[in-house]
Amino acid sequence: MKPLAVVCVSGGMDSCVTAALAAPEHRLAFLHANYGQRTEAKELACFDLLAKHFKAERSLVVDFSDLRAIGGSSLTDRAMPVHEGSPVTGSIPTSYVPFRNAHLLAAATSWGEVLGARAIFVGAVWEDSSGYPDCRPEFYRAFEEAIRKGTRPETDLRIVTPVISMSKGEIVRRGLAVGAPFEKTWSCYQAEDAACGRCESCRLRLKGFAEAGAVDPIPYRKPG
Amino acid sequence: MKPLAVVCVSGGMDSCVTAALAAPEHRLAFLHANYGQRTEAKELACFDLLAKHFKAERSLVVDFSDLRAIGGSSLTDRAMPVHEGSPVTGSIPTSYVPFRNAHLLAAATSWGEVLGARAIFVGAVWEDSSGYPDCRPEFYRAFEEAIRKGTRPETDLRIVTPVISMSKGEIVRRGLAVGAPFEKTWSCYQAEDAACGRCESCRLRLKGFAEAGAVDPIPYRKPG
Repeated sequence: MKPLAVVCVSGGMDSCVTAALAAPEHRLAFLHANYGQRTEAKELACFDLLAKHFKAERSLVVDFSDLRAIGGSSLTDRAMPVHEGSPVTGSIPTSYVPFRNAHLLAAATSWGEVLGARAIFVGAVWEDSSGYPDCRPEFYRAFEEAIRKGTRPETDLRIVTPVISMSKGEIVRRGLAVGAPFEKTWSCYQAEDAACGRCESCRLRLKGFAEAGAVDPIPYRKPG
Repeated sequence: MKPLAVVCVSGGMDSCVTAALAAPEHRLAFLHANYGQRTEAKELACFDLLAKHFKAERSLVVDFSDLRAIGGSSLTDRAMPVHEGSPVTGSIPTSYVPFRNAHLLAAATSWGEVLGARAIFVGAVWEDSSGYPDCRPEFYRAFEEAIRKGTRPETDLRIVTPVISMSKGEIVRRGLAVGAPFEKTWSCYQAEDAACGRCESCRLRLKGFAEAGAVDPIPYRKPG
């Protein structure tokens, strides 16, 4: 029997490609986090579509009420505007949710330990990203060490980040090569009906499809 | 102005003494987690009493719904019995909540990063404990490295575990010396009216007071 992997699936394109890369060698347990982000309903709908597409054996949606209460990000605090414009500015954008990926990894580890999983797959991107510190490869290596020290001796969970060093164009090309269902993903930080095309997440996604010479199958708002 | 410290306060004696040790040099932000443990109502009442006692500037209660959903522990799963008897058996007891302290540290870090805190105080005990792997000193060192890698460059949060190497007797003695209000704490895993005196947490607490030659001020059930 194949080993079980917990796959963190936001509903965006990076975690969709990550799931497609994990699928051939693993049974899948899909984990999604609601942390009060603006577009959660759309992301959750995509998560459900992806869990069905990849025939996940288990799926779990967790609610990070603490991140909502703590705030400090334009994704969870409706009083802060979502940044538009170039995502590559050298500073950390307002959409950074403080240490969010540690919450995600903690949930994935607890669940993985109970299920006896052997790996946690995360679709973090660093090279071609918004510059969130909790997407750095060094963070994942450090957290993996914390897992090793902080779980039962018989627990053996590694963290796998297969797209962390890819450009957005490479992620799209790789996803198309392995049949990733991009039409079942969502990236926009602002809207749930048609993607805005202007927030940092939309810009990174559109850059990826442009670099890959491919057409993004999701709907975008007409420029007004 | 003194630096701000996030103090993780369960409502038990170890975190009470930890708060008493943090108080002289820090402004205090008290953090409590509800993860579906059996005695949460009593622990939360103690948390509120302690926040008032120590004049915490801020307090935050977070809800770890994911740990409740994941289960795997007698503290969160009512179908599993709470272990009675010697807590020092060499194996990890059923009360271990998988990787719980990582969830706590993730919340403390996110909050501490937003508040600009300089330290996270945790009342973990290792030498004289139930043997939970996420109470090991190495776990805290590894997690501190994950904080360093996964937060903003200007964030400077260290983890302080002042009682981690103390015996339970030393914790009681130290607490009495600094005026820790033990009457405002609760340790029992099973009951909220009078402590059972038999679960592993009660046994460790009673051992501490016995070693210190002191009287525990909380009520215990009369042996039946």
